[in-house]
Amino acid sequence: MIIVLKPKISKKDENAVLREIKRLGYKPHVMRGVARTVVGAIGDELTHQSLENLPSTFPQSVESVMPVQKRYKLVSREAHPSNSTIDVRGNLIGGKKFQVMAGPCSVEGEKQLLTTAHAVKAAGATVLRGGAFKPRTSPYEFQGLGLKGLKMLDKARRETGLGIITELLSEDHAEMVAEFTDIIQIGARNSQNFQLLIAAARTGKPVLLKRGLSMRIEEWLLAGEYVLSNNNPNLLFCERGIRTFETYTRNTLDLSTIPIIKKESHSPIVIDPSQGAGRADLVMAMCKGAVAMGADALLIEVHPNPAEAWSDGAQQVSLELFAKLMEELKPFIAAAGRE
Amino acid sequence: MIIVLKPKISKKDENAVLREIKRLGYKPHVMRGVARTVVGAIGDELTHQSLENLPSTFPQSVESVMPVQKRYKLVSREAHPSNSTIDVRGNLIGGKKFQVMAGPCSVEGEKQLLTTAHAVKAAGATVLRGGAFKPRTSPYEFQGLGLKGLKMLDKARRETGLGIITELLSEDHAEMVAEFTDIIQIGARNSQNFQLLIAAARTGKPVLLKRGLSMRIEEWLLAGEYVLSNNNPNLLFCERGIRTFETYTRNTLDLSTIPIIKKESHSPIVIDPSQGAGRADLVMAMCKGAVAMGADALLIEVHPNPAEAWSDGAQQVSLELFAKLMEELKPFIAAAGRE
Amino acid sequence: MIIVLKPKISKKDENAVLREIKRLGYKPHVMRGVARTVVGAIGDELTHQSLENLPSTFPQSVESVMPVQKRYKLVSREAHPSNSTIDVRGNLIGGKKFQVMAGPCSVEGEKQLLTTAHAVKAAGATVLRGGAFKPRTSPYEFQGLGLKGLKMLDKARRETGLGIITELLSEDHAEMVAEFTDIIQIGARNSQNFQLLIAAARTGKPVLLKRGLSMRIEEWLLAGEYVLSNNNPNLLFCERGIRTFETYTRNTLDLSTIPIIKKESHSPIVIDPSQGAGRADLVMAMCKGAVAMGADALLIEVHPNPAEAWSDGAQQVSLELFAKLMEELKPFIAAAGRE
Amino acid sequence: MIIVLKPKISKKDENAVLREIKRLGYKPHVMRGVARTVVGAIGDELTHQSLENLPSTFPQSVESVMPVQKRYKLVSREAHPSNSTIDVRGNLIGGKKFQVMAGPCSVEGEKQLLTTAHAVKAAGATVLRGGAFKPRTSPYEFQGLGLKGLKMLDKARRETGLGIITELLSEDHAEMVAEFTDIIQIGARNSQNFQLLIAAARTGKPVLLKRGLSMRIEEWLLAGEYVLSNNNPNLLFCERGIRTFETYTRNTLDLSTIPIIKKESHSPIVIDPSQGAGRADLVMAMCKGAVAMGADALLIEVHPNPAEAWSDGAQQVSLELFAKLMEELKPFIAAAGRE
Repeated sequence: MIIVLKPKISKKDENAVLREIKRLGYKPHVMRGVARTVVGAIGDELTHQSLENLPSTFPQSVESVMPVQKRYKLVSREAHPSNSTIDVRGNLIGGKKFQVMAGPCSVEGEKQLLTTAHAVKAAGATVLRGGAFKPRTSPYEFQGLGLKGLKMLDKARRETGLGIITELLSEDHAEMVAEFTDIIQIGARNSQNFQLLIAAARTGKPVLLKRGLSMRIEEWLLAGEYVLSNNNPNLLFCERGIRTFETYTRNTLDLSTIPIIKKESHSPIVIDPSQGAGRADLVMAMCKGAVAMGADALLIEVHPNPAEAWSDGAQQVSLELFAKLMEELKPFIAAAGRE
Repeated sequence: MIIVLKPKISKKDENAVLREIKRLGYKPHVMRGVARTVVGAIGDELTHQSLENLPSTFPQSVESVMPVQKRYKLVSREAHPSNSTIDVRGNLIGGKKFQVMAGPCSVEGEKQLLTTAHAVKAAGATVLRGGAFKPRTSPYEFQGLGLKGLKMLDKARRETGLGIITELLSEDHAEMVAEFTDIIQIGARNSQNFQLLIAAARTGKPVLLKRGLSMRIEEWLLAGEYVLSNNNPNLLFCERGIRTFETYTRNTLDLSTIPIIKKESHSPIVIDPSQGAGRADLVMAMCKGAVAMGADALLIEVHPNPAEAWSDGAQQVSLELFAKLMEELKPFIAAAGRE
Repeated sequence: MIIVLKPKISKKDENAVLREIKRLGYKPHVMRGVARTVVGAIGDELTHQSLENLPSTFPQSVESVMPVQKRYKLVSREAHPSNSTIDVRGNLIGGKKFQVMAGPCSVEGEKQLLTTAHAVKAAGATVLRGGAFKPRTSPYEFQGLGLKGLKMLDKARRETGLGIITELLSEDHAEMVAEFTDIIQIGARNSQNFQLLIAAARTGKPVLLKRGLSMRIEEWLLAGEYVLSNNNPNLLFCERGIRTFETYTRNTLDLSTIPIIKKESHSPIVIDPSQGAGRADLVMAMCKGAVAMGADALLIEVHPNPAEAWSDGAQQVSLELFAKLMEELKPFIAAAGRE
Repeated sequence: MIIVLKPKISKKDENAVLREIKRLGYKPHVMRGVARTVVGAIGDELTHQSLENLPSTFPQSVESVMPVQKRYKLVSREAHPSNSTIDVRGNLIGGKKFQVMAGPCSVEGEKQLLTTAHAVKAAGATVLRGGAFKPRTSPYEFQGLGLKGLKMLDKARRETGLGIITELLSEDHAEMVAEFTDIIQIGARNSQNFQLLIAAARTGKPVLLKRGLSMRIEEWLLAGEYVLSNNNPNLLFCERGIRTFETYTRNTLDLSTIPIIKKESHSPIVIDPSQGAGRADLVMAMCKGAVAMGADALLIEVHPNPAEAWSDGAQQVSLELFAKLMEELKPFIAAAGRE
């Protein structure tokens, strides 16, 4: 920790600060600069108590406190220099092969799901997405088919061999959802619902953690740390757009997260362009950008008839557009050195 | 719903849109303007299926769709024109008397809690706050004393007669927490954890719903709707600062929520200046502003020794500062026509 | 400056960084911590070249660089511990007396302006606002009456004795605008138009600097520094709302700027609730909050007939509402210890 | 315009609103819905006075007003369906060939500039960037070499045949800057400095308009409209990152602007990844994404020795890294169907 003292404080006030730093277990190291005196507090910031309270304890003496250590450990690339890969029914996410997960926003019925599953498989996807439990802004909107939806996903898995990803909304459903899915998705609204993260981690299934609407990179990495520190190494980060002042798109898809997560962490990074843009007509370009920038996988909302979708129709692409998309992505996947 | 058509579309394309509007249960009403044709879709937007998918179904024909109805019902002032009041051990929140809830960020021990409880009561607070379960950004930070902390809150309640407010983090704890508290707090990170909201509502205890870090007013009202539509009329909204680009303060306290919530809803509005500013030195001014603007109550973090707090020390005020604050608020409470 | 080195770098790499720090004129001071080595660079950050480039020069060795000095000088309270006051035709802004500036968004004609001027004076305002040059998002919107409008302001000044505040949009108009106004307003969109700030400062007239839509406090103080460092001590900061994700209000009025500016600077702080909320029905509550939190003055949009305003009608209050507002503010002004 | 009336207003109040709509030149068209009555106001929104004031004129009767027409004309693709191209010394921006503009943040001296110019030309760039006038947050930072810098740019142009792009900061410099440059850059901080935009447009030189830090797409298009409506068809939009809550990067580069600008406008879109990320180590990935998503050109900060740069060193790439970047972009340019 670095403690910046206020200008012109007395020797006595300075000593009081130094005593407090020692009392909290750090070794203070004083540097006298031209305009300010700065104190380095030597000690492990992750195990010692934080010094962040010093400015409020000594409002006349301490100007600010700055941490020097990163707060995340297990998700960091320092802890695990090579890329982690996640095995989903024999397909590796985070490896050489670029992966695509696709399917409807909500599971609406067996026919809708199976039609989509066969179509996305034919186009090259390896994982089927579909929501059985839906977090909806309003209590009056469709909340998902629940267990019935999970069973349909399972049927689609058996029929097509695709892996399954579906969202977990309640700690109480963790066991049940884990039974029917290959990847547990934690949605943006629950990205700092730590009890849910722990419950998901403990199932042992891979966990795909969406970035919260206004989540800083560091907070996202730390939320991922909740998964890894609960003995589950199979974590995927998923960028799905952040909330900004812009109203043209539903969210602002932050593609810079791709090189950043690759730099800071060993876990794969997945891009969800559907939630990001909230508009099917922008999905194609977003996917190309994600591939070019080094994403490990895409998570795309596909629906046999977007106009009749029970949720988020505006952002789902049709089966035809999805097939075209997969075709157009090929040269970019090759240019990115992926398969 | 209002549907704006693209300029210069053919009669045939227009008819296809009109047929779809009818198929979804609305009666279309065409208005031909100078530059655009606009269709009003007559029907109850809350019970009919949404038309928001039209632009993706008819990308060549439909430019945009705009709802005209508000999506929230039970929380709206239209539904309940007079103010709702919440009875907490005989003290009404939302009535003529201005209320203050105060206490430590985390319950750290019996002595810390009881010292604070007696001090805040002496200064005029009627509710004691204190976290027994703490949502922490990092898994390596102090997570709260849990049940032990709840029991300390209960002891403080019995000793002082203060009401209790504490945070609920897990659906599985809803019953347990309800046993020891008078108000259940839903934190900002769980403001759209709808399962938790439903679990809290079902205990029958008053629910204080903090605004999420990047939650729009409409989303906040709709999250409140989850409480009321689960047969719990005792809802309090609590503004605690939103996330913006500013880094000087931890969050940007949005005091305009006070007149807005008063206008849109009948439920009381509470201001939390501690989380809002993240700095004890700004809390005093924030409280005065909140009182002047018509807030019903304050929720303030108070600690006998902020420098030694186990969490968020920088934003907790000392017992002395709290007593001074309560004194300085008096003329503003009077000016606002409250007691 | 504090330089954080990467973990486990070689002695040779460390020495290269230290040599570069010396070459740039600083004295390096090494602190070896538990997880990181940190280097303090002793030297005046305001006169030396910045070290912010070190992470890009030594990407394998340097993790981050943190400044310890504040970048603003003349606007800081350290430089000028007592409050600055601005004299506007005998009325002091920033002193014991609370001041109100009011008038129409745009000067639309002599009758509109004079009617408003007499009414706001009668209600207690001491400065008349009115735009003669209007920055409009679209080139097709009303751009202001220009010199004709300035002359009307001057006439209103002579008739009523009110001071005048009006916006400067172009360097080329600085002299002309200064001739007809008592305070030059720099709008939010020009808050980092440094050439305009310098031109305004050089007229010698007081400069009211609105906060930019996404301007951090530090940037605002530094923009103010452009005024003071051009030999003009008469600076006023004006908060008018920042841009956030919220769409209910036009902007989010950040009232926490009041205690923050008071703490960091000696210049007065003015609140503009009209731009902040963009809705006349919220203006009353905003004004009360601003007074309670210690603002020095208000800047309010008032129009004899808001419905017919040529710009921003939605946010202008009527003459009747303004008179009522001034009346209702009185107990809050008294509670705040102002006159 | 669509006017939404409040529920349950009297016939008399409704008639008053209808009369006002007629008085302002529109033909009202009433639609009675289930929960609300909605009025369509038929008339040209671009030439008639706005109805946005209705909710403040009739606060008891009018709930909201929604425009249906787009506010921009000349920049819109409706007005000019094919792509516009900008000719810069024989190289077309916006055509089949992908273009790269590169050079130092600031012109620091002849040697620095010429070294960079020759290197970026050798690597394939066709335009040289370099700031002679620098907008700096603090008045104490390097403000650019001014005319001396412009002359160095001119010399580099003559020596290498590269086009020149440089920033205009002051209306008074428009003629002078136009003499030495091929494209006039309007920086993010001046993106709504309309006087500067008009002065730039009137020189007849192509204008590259950077997006403001918190500028909505619609505002950006309207700022571009200031250029086109001043008889200058040569406009380029340049995304350089927006300001969000994220602190890991300096700004959040919004690559979704590429498909959006392509959809809404005919003018080319240029991406500046240097300002966007503020970190040289992220520039490579950003460039690949921009190419894949269909950008017309890149604007990259390149410096012979980033560590010694006088401004923004952290975000400038070295000559070696730039050459490598240009090489690595090739397969993506090919995949995007460009040359």
